Amino acid sequence: MSVSISPAATADRVPVAIIGASGYSGEELLRLLLQHPFAELVAVTSRQQAGQTVAEVFPRFASRARARELRFTEPDVDFLAARARVVFLALPHGVAAAYAVPLLRAGCRVIDLSADFRLRDAGVYRDFYGHDHPAPELLDRAVYGLPELYREAIRGASLIAAPGCYPTSILVPVVPLLRAGLVSAEGIIADSLSGVSGAGRKAEVDYLFVECHESLRPYGVPKHRHLSEIEQELSRAAGRPVVIQFTPHLVPVNRGILTTVYLTPATDARGAGPAAALAARVTECYRAAYGREPFVRLLAGRGLPDTKNVTGTNVLELAWRVDPRTGRLLVFSAEDNLVKGASGQAVQAFNLLCGLPETTGLL
Amino acid sequence: MSVSISPAATADRVPVAIIGASGYSGEELLRLLLQHPFAELVAVTSRQQAGQTVAEVFPRFASRARARELRFTEPDVDFLAARARVVFLALPHGVAAAYAVPLLRAGCRVIDLSADFRLRDAGVYRDFYGHDHPAPELLDRAVYGLPELYREAIRGASLIAAPGCYPTSILVPVVPLLRAGLVSAEGIIADSLSGVSGAGRKAEVDYLFVECHESLRPYGVPKHRHLSEIEQELSRAAGRPVVIQFTPHLVPVNRGILTTVYLTPATDARGAGPAAALAARVTECYRAAYGREPFVRLLAGRGLPDTKNVTGTNVLELAWRVDPRTGRLLVFSAEDNLVKGASGQAVQAFNLLCGLPETTGLL
Amino acid sequence: MSVSISPAATADRVPVAIIGASGYSGEELLRLLLQHPFAELVAVTSRQQAGQTVAEVFPRFASRARARELRFTEPDVDFLAARARVVFLALPHGVAAAYAVPLLRAGCRVIDLSADFRLRDAGVYRDFYGHDHPAPELLDRAVYGLPELYREAIRGASLIAAPGCYPTSILVPVVPLLRAGLVSAEGIIADSLSGVSGAGRKAEVDYLFVECHESLRPYGVPKHRHLSEIEQELSRAAGRPVVIQFTPHLVPVNRGILTTVYLTPATDARGAGPAAALAARVTECYRAAYGREPFVRLLAGRGLPDTKNVTGTNVLELAWRVDPRTGRLLVFSAEDNLVKGASGQAVQAFNLLCGLPETTGLL
Amino acid sequence: MSVSISPAATADRVPVAIIGASGYSGEELLRLLLQHPFAELVAVTSRQQAGQTVAEVFPRFASRARARELRFTEPDVDFLAARARVVFLALPHGVAAAYAVPLLRAGCRVIDLSADFRLRDAGVYRDFYGHDHPAPELLDRAVYGLPELYREAIRGASLIAAPGCYPTSILVPVVPLLRAGLVSAEGIIADSLSGVSGAGRKAEVDYLFVECHESLRPYGVPKHRHLSEIEQELSRAAGRPVVIQFTPHLVPVNRGILTTVYLTPATDARGAGPAAALAARVTECYRAAYGREPFVRLLAGRGLPDTKNVTGTNVLELAWRVDPRTGRLLVFSAEDNLVKGASGQAVQAFNLLCGLPETTGLL
Repeated sequence: MSVSISPAATADRVPVAIIGASGYSGEELLRLLLQHPFAELVAVTSRQQAGQTVAEVFPRFASRARARELRFTEPDVDFLAARARVVFLALPHGVAAAYAVPLLRAGCRVIDLSADFRLRDAGVYRDFYGHDHPAPELLDRAVYGLPELYREAIRGASLIAAPGCYPTSILVPVVPLLRAGLVSAEGIIADSLSGVSGAGRKAEVDYLFVECHESLRPYGVPKHRHLSEIEQELSRAAGRPVVIQFTPHLVPVNRGILTTVYLTPATDARGAGPAAALAARVTECYRAAYGREPFVRLLAGRGLPDTKNVTGTNVLELAWRVDPRTGRLLVFSAEDNLVKGASGQAVQAFNLLCGLPETTGLL
Repeated sequence: MSVSISPAATADRVPVAIIGASGYSGEELLRLLLQHPFAELVAVTSRQQAGQTVAEVFPRFASRARARELRFTEPDVDFLAARARVVFLALPHGVAAAYAVPLLRAGCRVIDLSADFRLRDAGVYRDFYGHDHPAPELLDRAVYGLPELYREAIRGASLIAAPGCYPTSILVPVVPLLRAGLVSAEGIIADSLSGVSGAGRKAEVDYLFVECHESLRPYGVPKHRHLSEIEQELSRAAGRPVVIQFTPHLVPVNRGILTTVYLTPATDARGAGPAAALAARVTECYRAAYGREPFVRLLAGRGLPDTKNVTGTNVLELAWRVDPRTGRLLVFSAEDNLVKGASGQAVQAFNLLCGLPETTGLL
Repeated sequence: MSVSISPAATADRVPVAIIGASGYSGEELLRLLLQHPFAELVAVTSRQQAGQTVAEVFPRFASRARARELRFTEPDVDFLAARARVVFLALPHGVAAAYAVPLLRAGCRVIDLSADFRLRDAGVYRDFYGHDHPAPELLDRAVYGLPELYREAIRGASLIAAPGCYPTSILVPVVPLLRAGLVSAEGIIADSLSGVSGAGRKAEVDYLFVECHESLRPYGVPKHRHLSEIEQELSRAAGRPVVIQFTPHLVPVNRGILTTVYLTPATDARGAGPAAALAARVTECYRAAYGREPFVRLLAGRGLPDTKNVTGTNVLELAWRVDPRTGRLLVFSAEDNLVKGASGQAVQAFNLLCGLPETTGLL
Repeated sequence: MSVSISPAATADRVPVAIIGASGYSGEELLRLLLQHPFAELVAVTSRQQAGQTVAEVFPRFASRARARELRFTEPDVDFLAARARVVFLALPHGVAAAYAVPLLRAGCRVIDLSADFRLRDAGVYRDFYGHDHPAPELLDRAVYGLPELYREAIRGASLIAAPGCYPTSILVPVVPLLRAGLVSAEGIIADSLSGVSGAGRKAEVDYLFVECHESLRPYGVPKHRHLSEIEQELSRAAGRPVVIQFTPHLVPVNRGILTTVYLTPATDARGAGPAAALAARVTECYRAAYGREPFVRLLAGRGLPDTKNVTGTNVLELAWRVDPRTGRLLVFSAEDNLVKGASGQAVQAFNLLCGLPETTGLL
């Protein structure tokens, strides 16, 4: 028994690099780019790991020839700019900008996974991040890299700010409802649960196994940094300033964010007729917005999101319920914080940038 | 080196029994009563385990002589009534009432961990539990067994309905605020995370290790059964009917409930002056309500609740924050769903019933 | 910026079916075959799920068009034989054989993930499985589907018995050493830790989250069923009957087997010179056996296996140490019990059967 | 209904102190001593936490009045010696000795949880711990604090070395068998699984939640430090030098050690008659050794150990099987590494030291 195979497809491979590839997001980005059929990983940097191969640092990737050949280097901008056409920055906020500036000048496209270019207003950045923005002149140029909202802008961008993990889990469900005027921009509450990888690969007692296992805890209330970009984007969708309540919780899973959003229908739902009618309009709104999106899964009436259905994938699961007792609309989303909430979304943007099918390397 | 010890304290031991001691709440109740200095466990029942000793069914208790002697029996009311003065029912709702009726008639005090006697209105019971109440004539007689709210009534009660796990985590934080008129009775949202033991020791695929580990999921929305008792008690506190939003989530810990409650200050907080002033009034309210309670830990400004600080104990941790951006009051509670949320609270009520110090056997 | 892509490769797709696809191995097989570039999933069966689409039963696969179209059916052999060239059986032992017989007669190739065709001796089967073998006439025809050991036989086989999860973790490390005469066939001890998915998707109290989380326990000692195939294969490698000690433990991870094997060097290692010399010969032996194997990762001196480096992949990690104090050789392996220990290995065999590169769909 | 209670028992309370109480063992020791009826915690030290109350550092203990009053101090020997009669050292090896010397000189009894006084031979200490022993003159004076083996010596000791967690899990099962001559001192293999708290509260990447969850890994092979005390004690039991194989594994639980020991019956078991006969002699041996021990639970034929049955307790569970196929004896033990494997055992020794019932404060 045998199968005939035609010659493999050939294509340009785009040379790409990752700066800061030793954290959890960086590692996930490595995984995705190593398996991407049209990306050629030409450099990865990490001061700590410089000199070692990718396979030595991450044995899990050793099955891929490229991981056995490619060595981590120091983050030298000239070296990178000479080799890569697209550079991913997986660095802490405040540090990423210092690389973005010269890389853009050298003609590279930059996809930044940090918070440095997500905000349009340097004042908001200072308010939430506690220091002046390192490159405010670039803020106008950056595109917020959420493909479901800004697909066209991403295609032509030179600087893409990949959204934060929590913001993705909130913006995808809420923006279409605000745009459609189905819900009020007042009184929005987002309550999120996040796996521990969201805290990064940092040697801190708070994130030790023993401290997290059998532990449930809120943190970062009431003014988590991600609020800044969430509110920026919700305000754009609503056409007016939006202030929301956001409560993150740390829970003992490696990966996954589960967000529950509490919304008030735009007109009083109790008066507006049966809850079922509102639910139908929400369903219609989501179908229009996401019915053809490859990475948004609408659970219309069939179950509720569960992070185990999305971990390891770039999919965001979405469900909604109208509570006839309170008139409120509840929306639930589940995503992998490291994939759709970080690196997968960055690769999705990369595909757009390169004119590739958006799902390339992500299914 | 040696220590002189006077003869051990002597006291009446109250003969007690547990009906339905093979589930997680029953097991925890066994643990607490086996170590209780003034309870004498005279009978435990479980159809499934009848004939085996407590130590055989639960090896973890084998260090206690009583666990090696005492055998599970069938649940025979005459047998139990002849031996026990206080009987704990750790049975499913709808089943508990059938035992409560004859036990009360025989002169036993009954502490019921099921939902059967938590509601005052048989109609609400039918609405939420889907069948007629099995013994509506007893509803007036039952006392809602939350000592922090109904201490005096519990002391003299013959039938105590131990509160549900979620209700405890919500009522303890919210009732004093409603009573004090500090928060509005409108628009209350309670978002809860629960460990898997809350689902009981049931052989169902949904609660298998592999299905729960690395899984975060909402469930039971928007009308979870516990809403009925939560709203009953909040309505009593507010002096008017209260309808709330309640969203439970299943998360991968064995034990623990973490609840976040979103509240609106009674008068518009944005107008009422700085958030700090409201926070101070909330602090004052909680100090007055719980400052001397042995099982409520107020985290005034020092950190946020973490279930790992309360699991295995009868303590509920409580913290609060006023968000100056939204004017909202956020309250956080953490408890062990099997202790303060079930069996520990039942023992606390037992102590009150017996005129014992409330912390007996619970510290 | 855009990338030019040549037309996609075209190839025959082999029509395949899975019988019993609702357990954990079946689900993993679904995942692998849905993403396999040269397999066309034409039927999946499950009595329980019949009528539902794959995407409905397993939301995680809903991103694939095939999963949204394909419906589970009842396991009808004629229906399957008319459509599929290769049929995977993901059924309990004792049940698989009843499907294998007619499918083979109808000309299908069969890859069986159960234990039914792993043993060559029906008497051993009866001894370990407690019932007569359902189709002893097929035992001669079956090939033990461990590609690293039986690659050539697999290519031409009509009936392939995919090895058990524990056996894979033991045979891969031990067989080459026995074949090379480096270790004694006497006194071998294999001590294994397995994740809970190994117990299958069965609604039993023992595998509930609460029963497994924070639990470490041996089970199935001293005569676990997998011993039968382990000893059969070790005996073939040694050229003489081998009896080993095997102790499985259940530990709270979803996936992964970690096996530690204790071996005695063939000649007395204390007399044979320094431990380093023996270690070098073992390294040489493994390099010869597995140096070019895509799915065996030799950790020569660099660290020890960790299941987190192999979960989700078809790779088995292997490390070894000679203890100069005892003269013993210790070998460690890590694998994903559902991939290399079950479904991935079955797909690896499928690739061989079809004349495809062995790593197709598995990297 | 009320219960009459006689006045509480009165007794001398022994003033005790803990040096280094901020790690996991120290925290567990705090828990046990805070609830101990005849210990009075007069001082706790931790450079890092100095100035804070015990309740502030460990909110879980805040229910105890003593925890709210007592503040951590710097480790000042004069201060401690003036206040405490018994001092517990919960410090790293190499550091403990520096405190033991002056405390003993000042007349305190010292219970050391580190490895500093477990070995009788300073040369072995240097070999395994990599530095000279800091106080070799005290080695003769120290008693190995395993009550089941050295009860009488502990009663009169001034310096007690609480055994390591792994050694306890191995010595309790093996020593009686060696003493009785039932098993060979040759070829002993101990394979252990340990929860992550065994690694201590250290901010290292290896012990982060994400690195340990869904991870199974051996470590410290082939020459773990605990081998030194294991072999010392086995050699004493055997009356001749014993060298064993010991393999620890790190598994994702907070607490618990599960050890499987592989033993060869003293005379060839295959020739000595049926396995059942050997098993009976082992049972008899264990009953004689531990039948009356409060903290060793013999599972004679009834199940196998499970760490979840012992976590939080000072009990070690023990089971055994003779494999008729190999003639080998397998022994399994389960303990809580922080209780019987560290702090509980230290309190057990404290009780002996003070002439108290051995189970005081430990049931």
